[in-house]
Amino acid sequence: MTKDLRIKPDRMLAAFNQLALIGATGNGGVNRPALSEAHLEAHKWFREQIEASGLEFRTDGAGNHSALLTFQPSNLQTLLLGSHLDSVPNGGRFDGALGVMAALEVLRTIKDARLKLKFNLEAIDFTDEEGTLVGLLGSAALAGHLRPEVLQSPRGGRPALVEGMKRAGLSDESMLSAARPKDSLAGYLELHIEQGKRLERAKINIGVVSAIVGIASYRLSFIGRADHAGSTAMEDRLDASLGASAFTLAAREIVMKDFPNCVVNVGKMEFAPGAFNIVPARVDLSLEFRSPDEGEFKRLDSILLERAKQEAKRFGLEMKIEFLGKHSPSLMNKDMQRTFADVCEHLGLSHVSLASGAGHDGQSFDGLCPVGMIFVPSVDGASHSPREFTEWQDCVNGANVLLQTVLRLAA
Amino acid sequence: MTKDLRIKPDRMLAAFNQLALIGATGNGGVNRPALSEAHLEAHKWFREQIEASGLEFRTDGAGNHSALLTFQPSNLQTLLLGSHLDSVPNGGRFDGALGVMAALEVLRTIKDARLKLKFNLEAIDFTDEEGTLVGLLGSAALAGHLRPEVLQSPRGGRPALVEGMKRAGLSDESMLSAARPKDSLAGYLELHIEQGKRLERAKINIGVVSAIVGIASYRLSFIGRADHAGSTAMEDRLDASLGASAFTLAAREIVMKDFPNCVVNVGKMEFAPGAFNIVPARVDLSLEFRSPDEGEFKRLDSILLERAKQEAKRFGLEMKIEFLGKHSPSLMNKDMQRTFADVCEHLGLSHVSLASGAGHDGQSFDGLCPVGMIFVPSVDGASHSPREFTEWQDCVNGANVLLQTVLRLAA
Repeated sequence: MTKDLRIKPDRMLAAFNQLALIGATGNGGVNRPALSEAHLEAHKWFREQIEASGLEFRTDGAGNHSALLTFQPSNLQTLLLGSHLDSVPNGGRFDGALGVMAALEVLRTIKDARLKLKFNLEAIDFTDEEGTLVGLLGSAALAGHLRPEVLQSPRGGRPALVEGMKRAGLSDESMLSAARPKDSLAGYLELHIEQGKRLERAKINIGVVSAIVGIASYRLSFIGRADHAGSTAMEDRLDASLGASAFTLAAREIVMKDFPNCVVNVGKMEFAPGAFNIVPARVDLSLEFRSPDEGEFKRLDSILLERAKQEAKRFGLEMKIEFLGKHSPSLMNKDMQRTFADVCEHLGLSHVSLASGAGHDGQSFDGLCPVGMIFVPSVDGASHSPREFTEWQDCVNGANVLLQTVLRLAA
Repeated sequence: MTKDLRIKPDRMLAAFNQLALIGATGNGGVNRPALSEAHLEAHKWFREQIEASGLEFRTDGAGNHSALLTFQPSNLQTLLLGSHLDSVPNGGRFDGALGVMAALEVLRTIKDARLKLKFNLEAIDFTDEEGTLVGLLGSAALAGHLRPEVLQSPRGGRPALVEGMKRAGLSDESMLSAARPKDSLAGYLELHIEQGKRLERAKINIGVVSAIVGIASYRLSFIGRADHAGSTAMEDRLDASLGASAFTLAAREIVMKDFPNCVVNVGKMEFAPGAFNIVPARVDLSLEFRSPDEGEFKRLDSILLERAKQEAKRFGLEMKIEFLGKHSPSLMNKDMQRTFADVCEHLGLSHVSLASGAGHDGQSFDGLCPVGMIFVPSVDGASHSPREFTEWQDCVNGANVLLQTVLRLAA
């Protein structure tokens, strides 16, 4: 009975632990930035694992590495199961790696069971999910969304991208050639650690992701006047720090009070001229906020910018607003969410619907194919840190939910 | 009658305007940082003015330049009248320059009147009042307060000090040799622009300075935890920006409500790690505050630091307090204040007692000899800026108050 099929925890653990040695930093973490030597070593190891399992190996012009389990007839669509083997600099050993190892284990289990599915399976490692070079690079390339201009001015800098591509035998041209035919994908499923405390705090086994949040970022400049900080009376100052400080406090209050599903961050302020004895003439503030819902996202955007203008006005300051970029929220496929939930019930695992506050490769497939994602608990919510940890039973639970969901979708 | 003696406005204006051409920046301002080529050119011009007036020229190992008007017997004390010819980078043409030109004009006027005083007069330009290199350098050297270690790590950097001294033919040794004998000084008087709006706003001719404020500075570090700004719930964050922002607003409120004679400035915040998508783990805040009264100064110090700790605690942050330095308030001599006020009454000029929020060379003579200081109005309070401006009649008024005060002290 396929309903009773389970992954082999020991085999998955052995693979996970071997992978964690590649780029290991000695404190439980790994350092495998995209297309670094350590990342390429992980690629090589992954290929060996795939071939030793009797699965088919595939790579593409974006450096994505996959295990394939194909069926007849030859024109079947492919269900992608994946995540990424790259890490942030000095990151943890679970982020990305767990999803790829679980996907590989699901393929191994189905192969061993000699099942025949109505779509092909592909366990894929996407290049540069973390954004050391570009961000969601491999998935965007595969989905056909990668724009050549992005490769010319990547967030990690063009020289680092060129060096990484050279190291991996890739090029701008190969990157753009990785796009798959439009109707070839049956869907995309991903298992990931939560990177937050909600599951741990609620003691829930599985988070069924409802949406990946949208992200907007702005540079807000509060502009006053530089004055002598000794001889200028307090009431005569146009002190840019006051608008920036009042906005920072207000932004948090607005989100905590009226936008419980959203988050906001003032990650940086830069003061000019920035001397002890000069009233700050200008503060440039780095603002980022996220929402899982497009309507809420737009409402939050307008309320935050309006409040920034109000706080500037309150202290007699001018305001400059620089829009830096925006990703809309990605909704996860409803059927896939329902199937994940049903499978959790079947397996006796508690589950809850939640939004992902972090970005993931699933965003790249928005509008292209159904996308589903589950989270397993992160101890203390640690993320992008060697402290990152998920109990092994939770990893196994996640892999079994992935396996059973694949089987139900294939039924 | 010495009561009717007045300075010659045209002579003072001619000298003032000639001086304003040295290091002129073309927008009404001057760029004469201490011991720069422009400052040394001003020295040369000042010496020529002195010698052309038949006054005695004097310079010392600290680069101070003076005009002397001496009387018999040869053991008389000296009343210093002064200010400084150096400017901040791209500063205004009144700050310092007016005080030196007024002092020179007072000596010229008394010399022309062939009066004999009971103390010698010295119109002095003090080196580096503004602190491009050290701050109050010439006056500290003359007062015997200059410590050799200060010359080793000056705020402008040792290389700039060495270069400046070399350009002017000075050295560490010469600087320390500029100290005058303890009982040689009868007092120090200075005329300066207000660098604030109080006189202008109240339409008052002369400000009689009651004290030069004390200044304290601290680096306050608010320490939280870096977290993923997407996946970490708002209530789980230890966001250092919140403590720093709340303190910045609170510090202003405390001073405006309970310390009307004091000022406070948060001139800079530095965020770490300082990324859009990472909750700020640490904010280092530059705090400076000033008070004209020692008791109030200590009370404000303890209230501000206590409030910083409270705001840190409110947001779950740790707090590190680094004390960076403190100057106590300098009280101006009561008799000199009374004499300035009496002279204003005699001249039909309105006057008010006020504290100086900026530092001045008079501080260097604290406890050494009586110090008195007056301010004339600054249009729009502009300071350390080419916009700096004082009506010529106000400059003339200030110089006449200085002249008559000298004559009364000598009576």
